[in-house]
Amino acid sequence: MSERFEPSNPDFARVVRDSFARQGLMSTLGAQIVLLEPGLCVIEMPYAPGVSQQNGFFHGGAVGAIADSAAGYAAYSLMPAGSDILTVEYKLNLVRPALPPTLRAEGRVLRAGKMLSVCRADVYCTANGRQEACALLQSTLMRLSRIASD
Amino acid sequence: MSERFEPSNPDFARVVRDSFARQGLMSTLGAQIVLLEPGLCVIEMPYAPGVSQQNGFFHGGAVGAIADSAAGYAAYSLMPAGSDILTVEYKLNLVRPALPPTLRAEGRVLRAGKMLSVCRADVYCTANGRQEACALLQSTLMRLSRIASD
Amino acid sequence: MSERFEPSNPDFARVVRDSFARQGLMSTLGAQIVLLEPGLCVIEMPYAPGVSQQNGFFHGGAVGAIADSAAGYAAYSLMPAGSDILTVEYKLNLVRPALPPTLRAEGRVLRAGKMLSVCRADVYCTANGRQEACALLQSTLMRLSRIASD
Amino acid sequence: MSERFEPSNPDFARVVRDSFARQGLMSTLGAQIVLLEPGLCVIEMPYAPGVSQQNGFFHGGAVGAIADSAAGYAAYSLMPAGSDILTVEYKLNLVRPALPPTLRAEGRVLRAGKMLSVCRADVYCTANGRQEACALLQSTLMRLSRIASD
Repeated sequence: MSERFEPSNPDFARVVRDSFARQGLMSTLGAQIVLLEPGLCVIEMPYAPGVSQQNGFFHGGAVGAIADSAAGYAAYSLMPAGSDILTVEYKLNLVRPALPPTLRAEGRVLRAGKMLSVCRADVYCTANGRQEACALLQSTLMRLSRIASD
Repeated sequence: MSERFEPSNPDFARVVRDSFARQGLMSTLGAQIVLLEPGLCVIEMPYAPGVSQQNGFFHGGAVGAIADSAAGYAAYSLMPAGSDILTVEYKLNLVRPALPPTLRAEGRVLRAGKMLSVCRADVYCTANGRQEACALLQSTLMRLSRIASD
Repeated sequence: MSERFEPSNPDFARVVRDSFARQGLMSTLGAQIVLLEPGLCVIEMPYAPGVSQQNGFFHGGAVGAIADSAAGYAAYSLMPAGSDILTVEYKLNLVRPALPPTLRAEGRVLRAGKMLSVCRADVYCTANGRQEACALLQSTLMRLSRIASD
Repeated sequence: MSERFEPSNPDFARVVRDSFARQGLMSTLGAQIVLLEPGLCVIEMPYAPGVSQQNGFFHGGAVGAIADSAAGYAAYSLMPAGSDILTVEYKLNLVRPALPPTLRAEGRVLRAGKMLSVCRADVYCTANGRQEACALLQSTLMRLSRIASD
């Protein structure tokens, strides 16, 4: 299903990173973009007690937040200048405990439409000494004309 | 679809609140349980820059986190003593911008099985002077025997 | 979450029923619209070996088909004249075996936007002498300008 | 995310095909298994008016049915002898019109747990002279002990 995408905005990387920097939640979670290409966005998040659930794993809500953002910014990277983006819906399967110390969410565009994009994100943790998928997301994003004047 | 549920653990409220108190993420988000009945859990979260997305609304990931927890604790309230719970999957539709100042997630059990429970949660914000649904969740939870010794 | 909707097309019932009549799959499944109001569509399907899964229950795919259509036509009932509709995505939880003799899918609009609508559908069968929900759907629909000239 | 799986039942192909043959709906839809390996099941369905929606494409419900079955039989291929399987939930994104003449649903296991498995299925049609994904599914399956005595 992998495909090479051409960005319609040559300045996509700056636009994505500016938007990410304005997401207070990503900063709260300690999440960072570690890789960004057209149609691909990878976000990492270190473990901290502030992102935990009741048994000391990453909370499913924090897992969903970085997976949603990784998918969303993958889609955003392909949108023309002057676009804004919002998540229409996302669906997350938590397939094994999300173990410390670090989560890595890889978001990829599967279908980039004029208005709607469909993405998947796979979230990995380290288990048994290797990278294992701990969560799988599928989501729908919508392109909007920029709301704010910036 | 509403139904009255009998809790199988008379001490369910304490068990739910103890678990919630151990979820570091809920504390990070400033989220609190404001209502708890058998099969129903309502969580509120005040706005703060630390839970925002790029346009100053609540981040969809934070919306999903409290909706997931509201649904999960609704399910947990019906489980027998000695149970632990984990989210198998959740699906969230973001149906309008999640506006400050406060979100309210109402999680309800629709089907409580021996092993799997299915819940819905509706998340409300205040828009145009009244409560409006801004997000709709449907999720699957699994009962486990308690992992930790407590 | 229930709400009264005003149809924007006074002729909505004819438009919905004409579209339904052109869905070959609904005829193949023996499905029929038994109730239609603005924002609500109820579809029933009788059991037949041709809609079964391997254990003699209704197949989850047939359950999903009528739930998707019930939700979709609920949304379509609120759209202006000259609209076409397509399903963006749907998510179905199968919460108990879908038993013969008859399934009833009740689709309701929760959010009717200009372009996107979000619906839920509950599917009921008869179990233990009463109506029981056997499947729960949540879906997103998109309004299009009519493709075909009719 | 691709992985090689070892089947725990050496006779998995016969078990899968026997179950598929008992799904009346697959026969009604004209669907057939065209490829089966451990953790992978590919189903094809030819176009016929009986599987159409109102504009002459494949109906989303029929798309969902073969995607659900492809994912389910991929999961079933890895289960031990004496297992039965049921779909807990599935989520389908319809990413472009599902065009005649033939759909191909490729179901793959991403996580095979003792009790729950998580799969994805990609559904392809022919558009612009090449295979294009028209639908994307993510689903959860549950293993049961065989219900019927066979």
